[in-house]
Amino acid sequence: MKPEVLLSRIRIVLCRPSHPGNIGAAARAMKTMGLSRLCLVSPKQFPDPEADTRATGAVDLLQQAEIYPSLKEALAGAVFVVGLSARRRDLGPEIGEPREMVARLLAAAAEGEVALVFGNETMGLSNEEIQLCHAAVSIPTNPDFSSLNLGSAVQVLCYEVRMAAFADRPPVSDTLATPFVSPTATHSEVEGFYEHLESVMTTTGFFNPEHPGRLIPKLRRLFGRIRLERDEVNILRGVLAATQNPTGHGKH
Amino acid sequence: MKPEVLLSRIRIVLCRPSHPGNIGAAARAMKTMGLSRLCLVSPKQFPDPEADTRATGAVDLLQQAEIYPSLKEALAGAVFVVGLSARRRDLGPEIGEPREMVARLLAAAAEGEVALVFGNETMGLSNEEIQLCHAAVSIPTNPDFSSLNLGSAVQVLCYEVRMAAFADRPPVSDTLATPFVSPTATHSEVEGFYEHLESVMTTTGFFNPEHPGRLIPKLRRLFGRIRLERDEVNILRGVLAATQNPTGHGKH
Repeated sequence: MKPEVLLSRIRIVLCRPSHPGNIGAAARAMKTMGLSRLCLVSPKQFPDPEADTRATGAVDLLQQAEIYPSLKEALAGAVFVVGLSARRRDLGPEIGEPREMVARLLAAAAEGEVALVFGNETMGLSNEEIQLCHAAVSIPTNPDFSSLNLGSAVQVLCYEVRMAAFADRPPVSDTLATPFVSPTATHSEVEGFYEHLESVMTTTGFFNPEHPGRLIPKLRRLFGRIRLERDEVNILRGVLAATQNPTGHGKH
Repeated sequence: MKPEVLLSRIRIVLCRPSHPGNIGAAARAMKTMGLSRLCLVSPKQFPDPEADTRATGAVDLLQQAEIYPSLKEALAGAVFVVGLSARRRDLGPEIGEPREMVARLLAAAAEGEVALVFGNETMGLSNEEIQLCHAAVSIPTNPDFSSLNLGSAVQVLCYEVRMAAFADRPPVSDTLATPFVSPTATHSEVEGFYEHLESVMTTTGFFNPEHPGRLIPKLRRLFGRIRLERDEVNILRGVLAATQNPTGHGKH
């Protein structure tokens, strides 16, 4: 697949950005590296002249930017999602360095839409947001001063994306590619499975939504470690549906 | 030689920067990657509040910045100098990609002081300036929009410097450890889960042992990719048990 096609499948998602200047800087960083699809989740102030100023020649990306009320909606249709995380989390997804995670992102882009997600300038991604990601990436920084600017973080990762996409060799060796036999499930399909699972667990009394504890994050971490295929989501939901209606005859 | 010592021998030189905000952004970019020596050649406006604002927690680098009237003076004592160049020049020094040139820069830093030189925002390095460099580095960009912000260019190269300097050892060991919180389940524990799952699927009618099809291999392939932890097997079996005995109260 041509590098340009891979790049066109990568959306950059900024969650709750506070400063419009950073949105502009992110757009410029993206465009210099050949990326074009910018998604904003609840930006504090957008559009804004400061965003246009910092974007310089990348104002077209701002004009085409997609705005969503929640990260979940911004990720609809994505088969692989990597979130930037400055720290290790107890129940977060697997975390890796940029080069490794970018290689996985590009491998997934050969199959469908993918996303790189960045959190708010001050707080980063919330635990809820990072749980919507299949993997997390951490940019190595000076332990005494790890305060990477949002636009700079976008720049570094988009640069790694371009370097990997245009490397002489295919971005990911065969050893990293998993032999998928069915298309990867989209984000929405996987979320549909989680909702179905939660509903069954609630009905049976295994899960109490009023005292959720850490059950849901644990299950998301479990299934999030692999990229579920569409067929697999259908099978899992079939199992769940059969427990709800035991007289139903499964088809397989 | 310790990575921190190598980093301390790298000076970042900005030639005739026009916008004080970019000087601040460069200082922040440097500090996040563990570099500290900032040299400015004839800055148009410095010090400046806009530089301080963009530097955030890296104002100390601005306060210690060395200011020179010419690039030649800023390079005094350097044993190896790499200049950023967006283009190939007829009579310029050898030009290479960031990873290659950063490797050479670090090799030279083991011997003495070295410098990474960045030109003016609009014009880049002049021919006279680039000829003071031993080598040139070009950051790969989108040919249709190669307008990399000065602070972003500093960020990308300082990031490559840090990645290379800490290549042999884990830069932030703990933060990148894989977050497995429970021991991996044993083979027997996972088999116990498969038996439990098959039993539930059979009872509910989703699975017919007399016409098994490929359902079981598909489920084994799914959960086999995850490498289940012991706690996770317990959770999954808890979910299954609750569907068998919906009045039961799940414990977790």
